[in-house]
Amino acid sequence: MSFTIQNVLIPVDRAYETVDVQIEGDRIAAIAPHLEPVGTLIDGRNKLLLPGFVNAHTHSSEMWQRGMIPPVPLELWIAELYDFTPLELEQVYLSAIGTAVETLLSGGTSVVDHLVLIPGQELATIATAVRAYRQVGIRAFVAPLIQDEALAASLPNGGIEREHGDYVRSTAATLALIEEAVNQFHRPDEGVNILVAPTGIQLCSDALFAGCIELSDRYNLCRHAHLSETRAQKLLAQEKYGRSAVEHLKQIGFLSDRTSLAHCVWLDDADIEIMAATKSTVVHNPLSNLRLGSGIAPILRYRQAGVNVSFGCDGSASNDSQDLLEAIKIGSILHNTTDFDYQNWITPRQAIEMASLGGAMGLNLNDQLGSLTVGKKADLVLYDLMNLSLLPRTDPIGLLVLGRPVNVVDHAWVNGQSVVANNTVCNVDVNQLKQELFNQSQWNAKRQAPTVAQLEAHYRSVMGLSESTLGYS
Amino acid sequence: MSFTIQNVLIPVDRAYETVDVQIEGDRIAAIAPHLEPVGTLIDGRNKLLLPGFVNAHTHSSEMWQRGMIPPVPLELWIAELYDFTPLELEQVYLSAIGTAVETLLSGGTSVVDHLVLIPGQELATIATAVRAYRQVGIRAFVAPLIQDEALAASLPNGGIEREHGDYVRSTAATLALIEEAVNQFHRPDEGVNILVAPTGIQLCSDALFAGCIELSDRYNLCRHAHLSETRAQKLLAQEKYGRSAVEHLKQIGFLSDRTSLAHCVWLDDADIEIMAATKSTVVHNPLSNLRLGSGIAPILRYRQAGVNVSFGCDGSASNDSQDLLEAIKIGSILHNTTDFDYQNWITPRQAIEMASLGGAMGLNLNDQLGSLTVGKKADLVLYDLMNLSLLPRTDPIGLLVLGRPVNVVDHAWVNGQSVVANNTVCNVDVNQLKQELFNQSQWNAKRQAPTVAQLEAHYRSVMGLSESTLGYS
Repeated sequence: MSFTIQNVLIPVDRAYETVDVQIEGDRIAAIAPHLEPVGTLIDGRNKLLLPGFVNAHTHSSEMWQRGMIPPVPLELWIAELYDFTPLELEQVYLSAIGTAVETLLSGGTSVVDHLVLIPGQELATIATAVRAYRQVGIRAFVAPLIQDEALAASLPNGGIEREHGDYVRSTAATLALIEEAVNQFHRPDEGVNILVAPTGIQLCSDALFAGCIELSDRYNLCRHAHLSETRAQKLLAQEKYGRSAVEHLKQIGFLSDRTSLAHCVWLDDADIEIMAATKSTVVHNPLSNLRLGSGIAPILRYRQAGVNVSFGCDGSASNDSQDLLEAIKIGSILHNTTDFDYQNWITPRQAIEMASLGGAMGLNLNDQLGSLTVGKKADLVLYDLMNLSLLPRTDPIGLLVLGRPVNVVDHAWVNGQSVVANNTVCNVDVNQLKQELFNQSQWNAKRQAPTVAQLEAHYRSVMGLSESTLGYS
Repeated sequence: MSFTIQNVLIPVDRAYETVDVQIEGDRIAAIAPHLEPVGTLIDGRNKLLLPGFVNAHTHSSEMWQRGMIPPVPLELWIAELYDFTPLELEQVYLSAIGTAVETLLSGGTSVVDHLVLIPGQELATIATAVRAYRQVGIRAFVAPLIQDEALAASLPNGGIEREHGDYVRSTAATLALIEEAVNQFHRPDEGVNILVAPTGIQLCSDALFAGCIELSDRYNLCRHAHLSETRAQKLLAQEKYGRSAVEHLKQIGFLSDRTSLAHCVWLDDADIEIMAATKSTVVHNPLSNLRLGSGIAPILRYRQAGVNVSFGCDGSASNDSQDLLEAIKIGSILHNTTDFDYQNWITPRQAIEMASLGGAMGLNLNDQLGSLTVGKKADLVLYDLMNLSLLPRTDPIGLLVLGRPVNVVDHAWVNGQSVVANNTVCNVDVNQLKQELFNQSQWNAKRQAPTVAQLEAHYRSVMGLSESTLGYS
């Protein structure tokens, strides 16, 4: 299929230009003013064309709990999340569809889903998410979330050794599962990729990391994990290894130019140097970091050190949405409070590049994706500049990033295929999706999470907080 | 006019209840399950009813420059803003309409417009904004922005005395203007209020403050100003008065229970005590504070000290939108990074109360507005819980505040009058508004602001920043 977007605004250097863009098959074939029209014609007047963004870290099934968990830090939040994790494949399907829809409608054409697996139905969970993403047509990076330690191990012990229960699945079984998932589902040419994705040092043994590295090398897979998200995790790394998590991951060989690491809030200068030297990518999830009180990641310092940074929404239970434009806005302006010198602040154009080319780089695909370049894949988004939220006419990228765009995605394409047309997702009946989300849920202002009650006293003690007088519940 | 909203969800204690709500005239007449229907019937099923929020600080005409000004601190940003301030009454009209529309569609039923006046057409500017707000039907608090010193006076001098040009209008003429505006436009019963609103200590003499206080007392007007927004303003107050701006405003008698103060980023503990003792209200503008790098206002400390806090969008050139739900979300979760003890964090229900009752309190109208209470004015918003961004069904207020709602306002009423119906603003042709905003603007990636170039070297020097190597342009 070929098509030509005519008379569309694109950013060029520090200005804009009106051009035609020809797409042939899955590639950008030409960009220039007044091209000979080829294939279907798309009217690009009063519209802005940008490369699709990468939602570089999320957990799709958290959609079922968005808005629900009260404001508490990660270590308690996750206990509540796990107590109510969806256990039906139909739920996994619907929330993957929902995550893809919200990502597409906020400028994303790729999604990295650090996918929570239903115990006992692990491969079926992965198959279900892959099916959902293939249906929507979004470029999918499915990163099955794996661990081999039980949740209580993720808290620092504060000097007191604690017994941790065994995890439900052995390290070897987990690695075999991932290898099977690669064999069944890893089809980069078809827009479906499997990543090795241990959840992080807080719940994974070195053996699990080593197995992931081996699979990554053997099958040429990207690597993904959480890294140093909270102060508790920083304390834990010192307890476990006597060094920072970054130093440990470097020592065991997990860091590389195809490794992306979500959060990276609590890194010091030595850690940042390691991130730069290993060409690892930081995935910044600003809304989640604020919502969970994790802290403000030192994004300006990463950029100064030459570390690649991209944006993620994180799961919908810690955000509580999947709007990439919101993540890009807050992930840019938040850091203006961390450096008095505004010459270091992130400009809207830099933010756009982080979200597109930076995202592609974190997936080792920057030669294929992430910019309006002839020969690259046609993962493109066309924004409607006649939308009220993008008026009056000022600087289109400035307003797209710094404003609060509402329903601005007019068209989107992945691999040259139309996935959004006329502000409507092409391959999903959104009314039916809404009805199914409605049918499978209930309003509930207050629920009781048993695991949180078990963990809270220990958490407060080890984090130096006074004894709870209110209680979590 | 009377109407009954049937079977609608409202928050009660820590839960929800399904009730009918009767409105008679401009008041809430009854709230209970299964009321006898009165007047027009509104189907409230699968909808949430909340009191309208207050957009407690904005500058409507900044809409013309939203998305345009690069990421720089207030003191340089404002110079660019002023260089390109709209000078046509038609622009004032359109941006007031746009500000009202975006406020209504994000849950606001009241707006405080710290209105920039066109030199030489001051009263006409106020008349134009009043006309726009009356047309839309939003409750309007028009706060003409006044000053009696020229812009260069707003920078600290760093020990070197600098000559400042005179301001275009005398202090006496400015006060006479405000009194005339009160006589012509201040009609609280009709939903139009005039406030005395010196821009702040950075550009106002004590004589101007004294005149405002006198007008406020004589006509029972609320008081509004910017306060301690940036580090530069904090330095300036010490230079000018040898004490903090809060101490100075207390001494001259400006602080009161009908005084609301925008920003309050750089207050210390003594200042906070004064704010509490004088019952002054802090208007938190989180997006503007991030965008301009002003800092993170100590909102949790205000709340602990008993200071009333409400939310504002601030003008669209420093936000760059007028979405109150976005301001409420970021203004809540941002502060989770400032206190390790999550028991102090703002919950979604608290945020809703700050935005409604807190907003009303800052305008000395908490006996009339800000809660679902029989006898209070019917300033109400009905949210569509079948909207994709509010699904699945979890905790409706949790998801409204922490999610990223898109087009969720189904109905809104001000003074019992319908202002939004079926997600459409009743009294504005939005397509025509868009066309007029489009016609009166041009896309422009880069413009030159002469005043910025004049100020930048001095700003960098006095703020201790290294000599500019990039330059603002």
